[in-house]
Amino acid sequence: MTDFSNTRQQFHLPEGLVYLDGNSLGPMPKSALAVARRVIADEWGEMLIGGWNKADWMSLPMRLGDRIGRLIGAPAGSVTTGDTLSIKVYQALASALELNPGRKTVFSDNGNFPTDLYMAEGLLKSLGEDFKLKVVDPEAVADHIDDSIAVVMLTEVDYRTGRMHDMAAITRKAHEAGAIMIWDLAHSAGAVPVDLSAANADFAVGCTYKYLNGGPGAPAFIYVRPDLADRVRPALSGWLGHEAPFAFDLDYRPGAGVERMRVGTPPIIQMAILEAALEVWEGVDMADIRIRSIELSQRFIELVEAGTDKAVLVSPRDPQPRGSQVSFRFAEGYAAIQALIARNVVGDFRAPNIMRFGFCPLYNSLEEVEQAAGILCEIVETGAWNRPEFRKRQAVT
Amino acid sequence: MTDFSNTRQQFHLPEGLVYLDGNSLGPMPKSALAVARRVIADEWGEMLIGGWNKADWMSLPMRLGDRIGRLIGAPAGSVTTGDTLSIKVYQALASALELNPGRKTVFSDNGNFPTDLYMAEGLLKSLGEDFKLKVVDPEAVADHIDDSIAVVMLTEVDYRTGRMHDMAAITRKAHEAGAIMIWDLAHSAGAVPVDLSAANADFAVGCTYKYLNGGPGAPAFIYVRPDLADRVRPALSGWLGHEAPFAFDLDYRPGAGVERMRVGTPPIIQMAILEAALEVWEGVDMADIRIRSIELSQRFIELVEAGTDKAVLVSPRDPQPRGSQVSFRFAEGYAAIQALIARNVVGDFRAPNIMRFGFCPLYNSLEEVEQAAGILCEIVETGAWNRPEFRKRQAVT
Repeated sequence: MTDFSNTRQQFHLPEGLVYLDGNSLGPMPKSALAVARRVIADEWGEMLIGGWNKADWMSLPMRLGDRIGRLIGAPAGSVTTGDTLSIKVYQALASALELNPGRKTVFSDNGNFPTDLYMAEGLLKSLGEDFKLKVVDPEAVADHIDDSIAVVMLTEVDYRTGRMHDMAAITRKAHEAGAIMIWDLAHSAGAVPVDLSAANADFAVGCTYKYLNGGPGAPAFIYVRPDLADRVRPALSGWLGHEAPFAFDLDYRPGAGVERMRVGTPPIIQMAILEAALEVWEGVDMADIRIRSIELSQRFIELVEAGTDKAVLVSPRDPQPRGSQVSFRFAEGYAAIQALIARNVVGDFRAPNIMRFGFCPLYNSLEEVEQAAGILCEIVETGAWNRPEFRKRQAVT
Repeated sequence: MTDFSNTRQQFHLPEGLVYLDGNSLGPMPKSALAVARRVIADEWGEMLIGGWNKADWMSLPMRLGDRIGRLIGAPAGSVTTGDTLSIKVYQALASALELNPGRKTVFSDNGNFPTDLYMAEGLLKSLGEDFKLKVVDPEAVADHIDDSIAVVMLTEVDYRTGRMHDMAAITRKAHEAGAIMIWDLAHSAGAVPVDLSAANADFAVGCTYKYLNGGPGAPAFIYVRPDLADRVRPALSGWLGHEAPFAFDLDYRPGAGVERMRVGTPPIIQMAILEAALEVWEGVDMADIRIRSIELSQRFIELVEAGTDKAVLVSPRDPQPRGSQVSFRFAEGYAAIQALIARNVVGDFRAPNIMRFGFCPLYNSLEEVEQAAGILCEIVETGAWNRPEFRKRQAVT
């Protein structure tokens, strides 16, 4: 049984703040500073270039991959880390398209995070005008997978609504249609149980600064199904994905398995901090996370709906097809979220009118959820959002 | 006049160590730890998601770009930072090829760092079999630029020998032949004076963990000539290069100028540390750096050649076409470098037989250079390299 009072204690949470935005940026693990000191002062400072060997920086991307793999049903050695999620989406998609050379359509939904669609658009334009991106509503995905499709590329949990695809069923459908399946786990890894092996997914990608708490701009991850990994050609063929980076050959030879998805010199300091954040997951059972997450989100929905009918639930009411977030539609959602933040409750806003709340069992409590729901209802009901300082838009919302 | 005793004091240099490998990984600026504490504890820890606005993380990539721009002759707003050098090479090359649609040959030399060639190879394979990478010896570059070439892609300073291309002359030649010119400044930025504007370069890329001392895996940079920047199509079209990332549109619209070369969420912690490292450059004149660099490297060559004839200079003897490094060929170079490290002098080895030494005026002194040359000669002359522990290869060399 996961001890959530212990996991909560491992995070720095500012006094009095109710933080329901761990699905944007997870909070700082208390160990982060000591680890930063170690990697900066003891390793970089004292070992200098020798850190690559002496502190084993070289194996960090794969070590981190193995830790993440345990949370997403991926075997050891099948996940590596580095770059950003956008880059990893591009890598997965470029490789996937080449595995299915007769077909030229990439299929996704409009609940996919925009950068996934943008990266696909950029890649497909490079490949030629025969290549197309087809995008439907999330609910229509299953009915539109046919044998014209080269690659199905979906984010499991919709960043707007929290609606969750049925990974196993859609992957099966994609395979029956002869398509390659890519899953983006940005809002899944650490949020809901994922079993990539059982679902037989071909590729998966994700970020580590949300539910995995790696810090701002922490590196991304990529999974390639082990029996495919030695067959894929990395379009982004960087030297650290080379079979022998330090041979300095003029020609590229891909490294073994998923290691070929490494590209350039990895961000060692961010990676060391991510490693500290992933240590919090030792002894955590994803099944416990799921039970607790549902408890938190159900309670939130119940209280908000009891307190106001001005905000409308846009997440699935049934917890089963819902990730670890709850979203409400409210015309003045932007201002309401700013008013909420001014009351020390952090959720976030997603255009055009969505108020979004993430629930992270590692550190969120039922009391926090109850408090947040109460304040949200008060703001929405009383019109407390209607002040100029709350309506003024900032760069990052 | 640059005060090099002041710049040296701004770095942590382990007692007794002579570090001539800043061309692989620069040493830690003393301010790095305090900045890491600020960005981790005060910003991430206390502001959480609010850091993007309150601590202005959002503008960090462009702020860093402006600081780097001042060292490479690039105007404000023409350089941005993020990702790795490999990724930035890919971006520049993909964009450059589209600016020259009738041509399909990318031209480079075998002194380019392998990852540049690998990334080109990966991109060209994706684009189709008409696309070719042509590679010649560095000395032959000027004579092989003709109107079949779409893009000339060169690293200004050869990572093996330190041989430096004539940036202005080759760029002119490329343009006369109707080609686009990309410069990789990995061994130039902070090492030698660079004037991208005067040379009329189209694209430039570089890394920040060598002479710019940003730390292991610090982000890369990319420059696009301002009059081209609004015309280039980013192949890696990520959300932070979008005109309005937080509108969450389904379609990609490139941001203004070089901002479109941003891709995913940038590594804020590494970037904050890089910012601290770039502050050391305030008040530093690149002309002074060059004078001092030549003084250090000439003295090293003189002393090594006076002390042994077993190691053969492979860098240009004339300082003018040489970057801020000196390399000697020695059949047992790998073991000799290990023996040297055991004597507290750090240089590095590049396959197959090159002993490489970087000179960084910010912190290297003439006394260090003299000491290093003496110990190197002793090792080479006496055969002190010939011990099993020095000949045993490690992962990173």
